[in-house]
Amino acid sequence: MTVVRSTLPEDARRIAGDALQSTLVDLLGLSLIGKQAHWNIVGPRFRSIHLQLDEVVDTARSYSDTVAERAAALGLPPDGRPETIASAYTLPGPKEGWQRDNDVVALMMETLETAIGRLRERIAATEKADPVTQDLLIGITAELEKQRWMFDAENWPRD
Amino acid sequence: MTVVRSTLPEDARRIAGDALQSTLVDLLGLSLIGKQAHWNIVGPRFRSIHLQLDEVVDTARSYSDTVAERAAALGLPPDGRPETIASAYTLPGPKEGWQRDNDVVALMMETLETAIGRLRERIAATEKADPVTQDLLIGITAELEKQRWMFDAENWPRD
Amino acid sequence: MTVVRSTLPEDARRIAGDALQSTLVDLLGLSLIGKQAHWNIVGPRFRSIHLQLDEVVDTARSYSDTVAERAAALGLPPDGRPETIASAYTLPGPKEGWQRDNDVVALMMETLETAIGRLRERIAATEKADPVTQDLLIGITAELEKQRWMFDAENWPRD
Amino acid sequence: MTVVRSTLPEDARRIAGDALQSTLVDLLGLSLIGKQAHWNIVGPRFRSIHLQLDEVVDTARSYSDTVAERAAALGLPPDGRPETIASAYTLPGPKEGWQRDNDVVALMMETLETAIGRLRERIAATEKADPVTQDLLIGITAELEKQRWMFDAENWPRD
Amino acid sequence: MTVVRSTLPEDARRIAGDALQSTLVDLLGLSLIGKQAHWNIVGPRFRSIHLQLDEVVDTARSYSDTVAERAAALGLPPDGRPETIASAYTLPGPKEGWQRDNDVVALMMETLETAIGRLRERIAATEKADPVTQDLLIGITAELEKQRWMFDAENWPRD
Amino acid sequence: MTVVRSTLPEDARRIAGDALQSTLVDLLGLSLIGKQAHWNIVGPRFRSIHLQLDEVVDTARSYSDTVAERAAALGLPPDGRPETIASAYTLPGPKEGWQRDNDVVALMMETLETAIGRLRERIAATEKADPVTQDLLIGITAELEKQRWMFDAENWPRD
Amino acid sequence: MTVVRSTLPEDARRIAGDALQSTLVDLLGLSLIGKQAHWNIVGPRFRSIHLQLDEVVDTARSYSDTVAERAAALGLPPDGRPETIASAYTLPGPKEGWQRDNDVVALMMETLETAIGRLRERIAATEKADPVTQDLLIGITAELEKQRWMFDAENWPRD
Amino acid sequence: MTVVRSTLPEDARRIAGDALQSTLVDLLGLSLIGKQAHWNIVGPRFRSIHLQLDEVVDTARSYSDTVAERAAALGLPPDGRPETIASAYTLPGPKEGWQRDNDVVALMMETLETAIGRLRERIAATEKADPVTQDLLIGITAELEKQRWMFDAENWPRD
Amino acid sequence: MTVVRSTLPEDARRIAGDALQSTLVDLLGLSLIGKQAHWNIVGPRFRSIHLQLDEVVDTARSYSDTVAERAAALGLPPDGRPETIASAYTLPGPKEGWQRDNDVVALMMETLETAIGRLRERIAATEKADPVTQDLLIGITAELEKQRWMFDAENWPRD
Amino acid sequence: MTVVRSTLPEDARRIAGDALQSTLVDLLGLSLIGKQAHWNIVGPRFRSIHLQLDEVVDTARSYSDTVAERAAALGLPPDGRPETIASAYTLPGPKEGWQRDNDVVALMMETLETAIGRLRERIAATEKADPVTQDLLIGITAELEKQRWMFDAENWPRD
Amino acid sequence: MTVVRSTLPEDARRIAGDALQSTLVDLLGLSLIGKQAHWNIVGPRFRSIHLQLDEVVDTARSYSDTVAERAAALGLPPDGRPETIASAYTLPGPKEGWQRDNDVVALMMETLETAIGRLRERIAATEKADPVTQDLLIGITAELEKQRWMFDAENWPRD
Amino acid sequence: MTVVRSTLPEDARRIAGDALQSTLVDLLGLSLIGKQAHWNIVGPRFRSIHLQLDEVVDTARSYSDTVAERAAALGLPPDGRPETIASAYTLPGPKEGWQRDNDVVALMMETLETAIGRLRERIAATEKADPVTQDLLIGITAELEKQRWMFDAENWPRD
Repeated sequence: MTVVRSTLPEDARRIAGDALQSTLVDLLGLSLIGKQAHWNIVGPRFRSIHLQLDEVVDTARSYSDTVAERAAALGLPPDGRPETIASAYTLPGPKEGWQRDNDVVALMMETLETAIGRLRERIAATEKADPVTQDLLIGITAELEKQRWMFDAENWPRD
Repeated sequence: MTVVRSTLPEDARRIAGDALQSTLVDLLGLSLIGKQAHWNIVGPRFRSIHLQLDEVVDTARSYSDTVAERAAALGLPPDGRPETIASAYTLPGPKEGWQRDNDVVALMMETLETAIGRLRERIAATEKADPVTQDLLIGITAELEKQRWMFDAENWPRD
Repeated sequence: MTVVRSTLPEDARRIAGDALQSTLVDLLGLSLIGKQAHWNIVGPRFRSIHLQLDEVVDTARSYSDTVAERAAALGLPPDGRPETIASAYTLPGPKEGWQRDNDVVALMMETLETAIGRLRERIAATEKADPVTQDLLIGITAELEKQRWMFDAENWPRD
Repeated sequence: MTVVRSTLPEDARRIAGDALQSTLVDLLGLSLIGKQAHWNIVGPRFRSIHLQLDEVVDTARSYSDTVAERAAALGLPPDGRPETIASAYTLPGPKEGWQRDNDVVALMMETLETAIGRLRERIAATEKADPVTQDLLIGITAELEKQRWMFDAENWPRD
Repeated sequence: MTVVRSTLPEDARRIAGDALQSTLVDLLGLSLIGKQAHWNIVGPRFRSIHLQLDEVVDTARSYSDTVAERAAALGLPPDGRPETIASAYTLPGPKEGWQRDNDVVALMMETLETAIGRLRERIAATEKADPVTQDLLIGITAELEKQRWMFDAENWPRD
Repeated sequence: MTVVRSTLPEDARRIAGDALQSTLVDLLGLSLIGKQAHWNIVGPRFRSIHLQLDEVVDTARSYSDTVAERAAALGLPPDGRPETIASAYTLPGPKEGWQRDNDVVALMMETLETAIGRLRERIAATEKADPVTQDLLIGITAELEKQRWMFDAENWPRD
Repeated sequence: MTVVRSTLPEDARRIAGDALQSTLVDLLGLSLIGKQAHWNIVGPRFRSIHLQLDEVVDTARSYSDTVAERAAALGLPPDGRPETIASAYTLPGPKEGWQRDNDVVALMMETLETAIGRLRERIAATEKADPVTQDLLIGITAELEKQRWMFDAENWPRD
Repeated sequence: MTVVRSTLPEDARRIAGDALQSTLVDLLGLSLIGKQAHWNIVGPRFRSIHLQLDEVVDTARSYSDTVAERAAALGLPPDGRPETIASAYTLPGPKEGWQRDNDVVALMMETLETAIGRLRERIAATEKADPVTQDLLIGITAELEKQRWMFDAENWPRD
Repeated sequence: MTVVRSTLPEDARRIAGDALQSTLVDLLGLSLIGKQAHWNIVGPRFRSIHLQLDEVVDTARSYSDTVAERAAALGLPPDGRPETIASAYTLPGPKEGWQRDNDVVALMMETLETAIGRLRERIAATEKADPVTQDLLIGITAELEKQRWMFDAENWPRD
Repeated sequence: MTVVRSTLPEDARRIAGDALQSTLVDLLGLSLIGKQAHWNIVGPRFRSIHLQLDEVVDTARSYSDTVAERAAALGLPPDGRPETIASAYTLPGPKEGWQRDNDVVALMMETLETAIGRLRERIAATEKADPVTQDLLIGITAELEKQRWMFDAENWPRD
Repeated sequence: MTVVRSTLPEDARRIAGDALQSTLVDLLGLSLIGKQAHWNIVGPRFRSIHLQLDEVVDTARSYSDTVAERAAALGLPPDGRPETIASAYTLPGPKEGWQRDNDVVALMMETLETAIGRLRERIAATEKADPVTQDLLIGITAELEKQRWMFDAENWPRD
Repeated sequence: MTVVRSTLPEDARRIAGDALQSTLVDLLGLSLIGKQAHWNIVGPRFRSIHLQLDEVVDTARSYSDTVAERAAALGLPPDGRPETIASAYTLPGPKEGWQRDNDVVALMMETLETAIGRLRERIAATEKADPVTQDLLIGITAELEKQRWMFDAENWPRD
């Protein structure tokens, strides 16, 4: 028996649901590694990157809530438990311990670039299934691309 | 070579560091399962518990930042990465999928109770080692005990 | 003679105009029956639903203004007069007098579900005619689907 | 069986209830036609009247809530459903389509004048029955008379 | 020798003074028992009633200050000392210890109903003596009647 | 030819108009002498009375606007020109030059007492003619009586 | 015996004092006639000018306080009593009763122009005597000239 | 059967509970007598002490809520009913009627001094039993000692 | 060597880049001519249009920043230098010197209409290339169409 | 025929007008090149300079409005059209495309230094002609000199 | 080699620099003695003067920052180190320990009077050298003279 | 004769007093040298450190007030006069003139480290004497250790 009913046909719901669940894992993971880097960064650019990382975390936390509630609104229980994130999260992340500032910038570039690539695939996949979900993914992409540009701009000249 | 130096002697630093690292894992885990419950709860008490869980999450997120920065201030790099939380987190958490409102209340009661028990042990352990860390743990305990009372008060009569 | 001129060709304008005018009637009607339920609800869940209904009303009022101004911007005078709403409004609504809390939740579920179904048809209809109007309807749908999920989640287990 | 009980004797309650219910219909109708005029006004005084009409709508919406909750507080379920407003609303209102700015000012003058006349009768009628209701009606009258003066002042010289 | 002089004749001052002093005792007592219920309530409706009771307390505290300063402004020293409240307060109040949520709702209904009945007598009594005091009592009655309705609405169906 | 029309019969309008016009003169005058005292006070209680006088001025300015707009709303052009205030203002006021703090307190007591006496007469006079105007005058009286008490309380023991 | 002592030599103090006292009268008078026009204006531009006049009044009130406190700071008791304003105020002002919108604009133009002319004379007069006072007068002039431009801009084409 | 369960062992709970319940009575009583003095004070220092007393009341109200919720969080129902305060409150308090400003200052000194003495005993008593409760009592003491200093500073030279 | 790398294929990037660069020039130009009109407008509708133009400028400034950062995020350096705007800007603009209010309204109508036409072409052009850019252009169009309607509505009856 | 009249004699007006018009062009140009640099900067100091440039832009935009309105207040229509800025702007500006962070700092230093030099000449030129305009130019200079110092301080050691 | 370059010629820079450095010492010293008096004042006027002293401290702290940054903007490193203040500060200050309220008022009068005298000399000295610095000193003088008046007004009658 | 009386026994008061007085000197000195560094820093990290130093100064100023008022509350007059700070302050501080950014970071590290070491000694010393004072010192230590970590993190790799 279905608990929360959906207003979408079954096929569309499955496609939208897959896109939302993987986005949720990416965003929750991003919020955790963003904080990890925020706390462990060292080096002369400490303060500037320390503050910038909190903006990434705020973005990730806020969108993860919207994404999970969208899934619920479609009748799909979102899954953001610690064990799920740990097993499903595959974006690059920091190693244990203190991290040099330049390494953090390069890592964030790589993580955001990978996340954006996946989001663009999901934008294509959900176009027919649910334009409302697609619109939400487009908004997340725009925001992450802006964050990526900023890390890229300050990653120059590259070693 | 030490990266961030400490103002505490080595022994005190190890004790305070252990207490802070395990508290960090508990709080980050609590913020994740609080959100999981926030999204997946169903039943007549949905809205009331849905809102209350966000207060737990806000508390956990805000204290996790203070705790991690305290560890860093003592020269100990905090570890809040997804894989660390998944392996080190041992408080009770929700199962996958929709959860009945009464079950959520009972679960939160149990999770908070376990977390508080551990915090009280750490309060005792850090008294000599670092009163500053102890004071922070006391503040977290007071807040979690207040949250626990509220879930307990609405958990009555117990089945 | 045209009063406010349009930047859309005639065909596109007619399609967008129809979608906007029927959405306007649905939203104004929704704002009235939301308030009616807000005032007449009785039962142990009074306070919780009483507050939630005001959020539905705020959403409906705010979007009705955006929808009507979009119609005006396309050179189509919107019609939200009492007699128009009374004759054109066809979503389910509350009966006269006090309403039990559970009945209100079930009614809001049904009303929102019907409204969402119609919005999805209009999203399809306006895609070619005016992507700006379509974008607005997508935003309204996302919001009403979130409201519907919340009433659905707290409507469980269903009698 | 009575649902919400009253603290007034039956006679007083009936008199106050009649006054409140007709005021509710007038205010909800006023909020609808105020918005209708807000959207459909054209002419060089567009912006100035467009903004002023939103103040009328805010006043009418806010007082309609107070009036309906006062009726409920007296144990009388208020009735603000679309069909009720359409059949019971008798104040002058705008015709369909674009409206010249000067015509809107004249119309609002007439509508407010009629509404005020009825409110003064209800103030007299409720004096003995319920001074609390009377006090509320006095407050509404003061506000509508102030709005009426403003339209009157800018309606001069009259054609 | 009079300390603070009055602008009212002696008779009027005595009538207004009596009405204000008994209202002060009722409101201070209401603020104390409202908090008592706020702290001691248990049961599944805990959070919802817990929050609603704080609104009653805020109302009572704010009006008690206005009432006491009105008495002082008439040259009558208000009396809100602990012993005065304990001996003069006669509205129903909670028993010692934890209270079930349904019992709290029923108690608040009864307490507010009694308080409102007395206020209506004082409104009648002060009409000639001091319309300023009467106006203040009317405002308090409107607010308490609204609070009473809310508890009444969620008290239904009554056992 | 009437410029702004009235919703009151001629007799009632004249009575309300007289009450409003004399209140306007009293309040504008009060705002001027309040500032005069605010600037010219000297003595050890300077700061405390200096601040308190600004509260009197704020009250007087804000009510003078409400009173004048009420007159206008009744179709009576209010008159607050410098020459009108100078000729019509008859409340006690400060002499030229520096004023001792104790003298200021005594003066404000006397001025407010006189103003209140007149307001009470107007409350009686407008009861039949216009309850809306009467309600406004009651509100002003309550506020001025509170201000008067404060000056009286700090005027003790009287020389 | 001097009450408040001055930090300026006698000559400089007299010059600055004269400039400040006449500016005080101009500003207090301006605040009164601005409000008079605000209340009595009629015509199609009512709302726009009605709001603009309140900005003039706010400017005049705020600067009159600064000017008076500057005089006091120089040891000169400022004089803003009703009778002083009435006898010393010589700027143009509105006649009694309703005023057409166009006439109000023309009047404000004339009043501000006259006030500005006098301020420029005082700026020249105080340059040597007290640069602090001069700086304050320059600030007032800049603000009044901006207000004058706005009335002038909307006064065009002039009849 | 226990209603709200505790996370403390029985002994510790009893000690902490006693300390919290007596502190609750002291703080609620302090909030009542602070207001009593706030309303009944007369004399030239009226305004200054009148405002200061409201800060004492705000402190006492805010801490009484924290203290009572702490007791509830430990599974102990707090008791703040009128009759409890009247019988258990033993700090010095004002007599009936108007109070001279100097007497109020001396009284507040004495009341706060007594309250602080008791709090220091409870700080010692709860150290082992519950460091969380002790930490809360330390915070209250710091605040009351600051208030006491201020009354003491203005109580000098003492008669 | 590329400085900021792009996540789009080369073709898509060129199309999106062209659309963004021309929109940037239109918006920066619009912000300059909006201010020019804001300062130079004269005539009886001065204040109303003066304020409305600042809303156009705020919209244009805020969107120009989003558009330029979107271009940068795609690896394309935006160009908003004075010489670029002067040579690339082709929307209609005001002549030098004072402008009559009616002429300003007609000019803004024409400028916005031209800008909207171009935006709709870019919406079509970017649909395949980059839906994120398209979504941003849709949002700008909706806002400019609303502004255009308002100028159109107050431009009626047209000469 | 003059449109907006001036309160200055012709000579003084011409001098003040020239100073204001050239300052307007400098400030509008500065706001455009500040944004250009804000968008196109790359390098490790990206974030810090990116934010600082927005402060320069805010300063330039805000003062350009004050300067233009001051010109208008003197009866001189300000000219801030795109073509005017392009032809009249002569301060140094960035080249097309991405800019290294160090180059941006050096450029801003040079631009601000040139702008300040011109402002100091205009301060001297307007002293006799119009002290109000001079006062405004002094304020702008102080702000730009502070911005210049900050770029200078972080430009050290210079290559 | 110069670190931060100046936009002033050498002579002007030296004059402005001397004026700014001595003003910095005066303001930092004033902020320290203002706090000293704020903490150590005793007597019946405690609360009133205690609050007023914090306004002096806020003024002094805020202007000291502006003064120091002005010096830096002129290429002169400001010196506000503890040893500099101790050796260069020559304004009157409080003795060690508790201070009677009347003595504090008299002391502040004397300190402010001395500081104002010096500021007026620096205003004259900087007129030619740097009108921007002079303008800043004028603003500080106006504020300190207002503070001085307030202490003077409450210092009367003088012993 | 004692001026402000204490609630602590003599011995405890002396210990707490010594700890508070030396902490006061450290904090006031820290606020002065923090500002000194804020104004005199030069180099590419100027902006980032310039902002961070103001956070240190805000922390130091705010805690110095709490510490001094705590001393006063214990009956001990705090001493924060310029000469006291100059003679008693022994933490490391900046030399005169411009300071390189890296040197400022190293200096702040050293200063904060020394200050923290002293605070930890005082925490141990006050444990028995006054837990309220100890609690305050713990809070200051936590804050300064967080500031120290941030300077340390950005001080890496150390030269």
